[in-house]
Amino acid sequence: MIGKFYGIGVGPGDPELITIKAVKILEKIDIVICPKSKKESKSVALSIAEGYLNKKAEILKLEFPMTYDEEKLNITWERNSKIILDLLGKGKNIAFLTIGDPMVYSTYMYLLPFLKKKDINIETIPGITSFCASANKVNIPLASQEETLSIIPLRKNISEFEKVVDDYDNLIVMKPSTEHKRLAEILEDRNLEDKFVLVSKCGTNEENISYDIDDLKNKKVPYLSTLIIKKGGI
Amino acid sequence: MIGKFYGIGVGPGDPELITIKAVKILEKIDIVICPKSKKESKSVALSIAEGYLNKKAEILKLEFPMTYDEEKLNITWERNSKIILDLLGKGKNIAFLTIGDPMVYSTYMYLLPFLKKKDINIETIPGITSFCASANKVNIPLASQEETLSIIPLRKNISEFEKVVDDYDNLIVMKPSTEHKRLAEILEDRNLEDKFVLVSKCGTNEENISYDIDDLKNKKVPYLSTLIIKKGGI
Repeated sequence: MIGKFYGIGVGPGDPELITIKAVKILEKIDIVICPKSKKESKSVALSIAEGYLNKKAEILKLEFPMTYDEEKLNITWERNSKIILDLLGKGKNIAFLTIGDPMVYSTYMYLLPFLKKKDINIETIPGITSFCASANKVNIPLASQEETLSIIPLRKNISEFEKVVDDYDNLIVMKPSTEHKRLAEILEDRNLEDKFVLVSKCGTNEENISYDIDDLKNKKVPYLSTLIIKKGGI
Repeated sequence: MIGKFYGIGVGPGDPELITIKAVKILEKIDIVICPKSKKESKSVALSIAEGYLNKKAEILKLEFPMTYDEEKLNITWERNSKIILDLLGKGKNIAFLTIGDPMVYSTYMYLLPFLKKKDINIETIPGITSFCASANKVNIPLASQEETLSIIPLRKNISEFEKVVDDYDNLIVMKPSTEHKRLAEILEDRNLEDKFVLVSKCGTNEENISYDIDDLKNKKVPYLSTLIIKKGGI
């Protein structure tokens, strides 16, 4: 019999912010797949989930390149999907781990199209996103009543953010690290320098929370950070 | 000793989509507060959480009016906050339940400002949002790579949605029920009639999933629905 494939969101970092459904799957799964960039020494998703794994579960680390090059990524994930299909064919049930939620800016999305083309049973389990975890940590609503909310992922360019910053009540900037100085300037230009909170490595031992525009402008912002902007006030 | 106050996101509907952290709190809590509109016969949040409650926990239902009238809401929630402060003063630990995530369009946000003014220990536990649950259910990414994502809550008017629909790669419309016909027309006008999925009552026995523009236009859309629009295709 062909195995079942699970995509599992393990949440933002705190191992207790995983769902009961995810834990029940991990307690009886055959193989756990952890995506891992070549730079990482250890999979963050695995460190969150490992306390829930049954002792017989095999751990399979699948490497992927840290690049935005679509072609390289496609080659890697097509190869990875073949490894997965082969294991499913052997009757193994497989869980693919992803930090946060599988449907919000995750590595799972690179893999999913290759699996959806095949006739396999896929179940994806949602996880707590980093932005929800961050907002709950500081007791600050992301959006209430009729407020609009915009989520902008930053890469090297910041033009998308500048285009919409004036249209929204509340904004979440994902991965603000590369453009933190420019983000601080944009907030200052709009008198929003005290209308934000920056949460880094939420729920981990290295968690840091700052409401200070000088931190955003001048300090190093870790990769796993979330910037929440609320024009109505923090 | 003054009790501790927990805001708890119980997730979108499926009782297994609650976090381990929330369950651990419910297993030892003194009082559970369920917000309940006057129209509801039973609290949805309570029905999700009740399997995890310890037997000694008291259940306290706090009613609130189904209105957008700020003044009426403030009067109600100030009164409710006083009930909570009184119980905390008696040393009770209290959990306030909310569907989905406490920081995303929840009733908890009405209460939170009144509690934050007082010197009490507040811990808020994030929950799986309805939009994450919906996207995972249908295996459709909400946003990948550098795509932008906009979240628009609908009330009686649809102008906010029309203002931003052209600026975003992906959009989530929360509570689309009141304006479902107009939403369908806007999608048709932009040739987006096959670029959406409508998920209603996700994770419950009454769950319904539709990709059909005629359903959106002509059928009754339940209150607990999420419309996901992806211009790059579903």
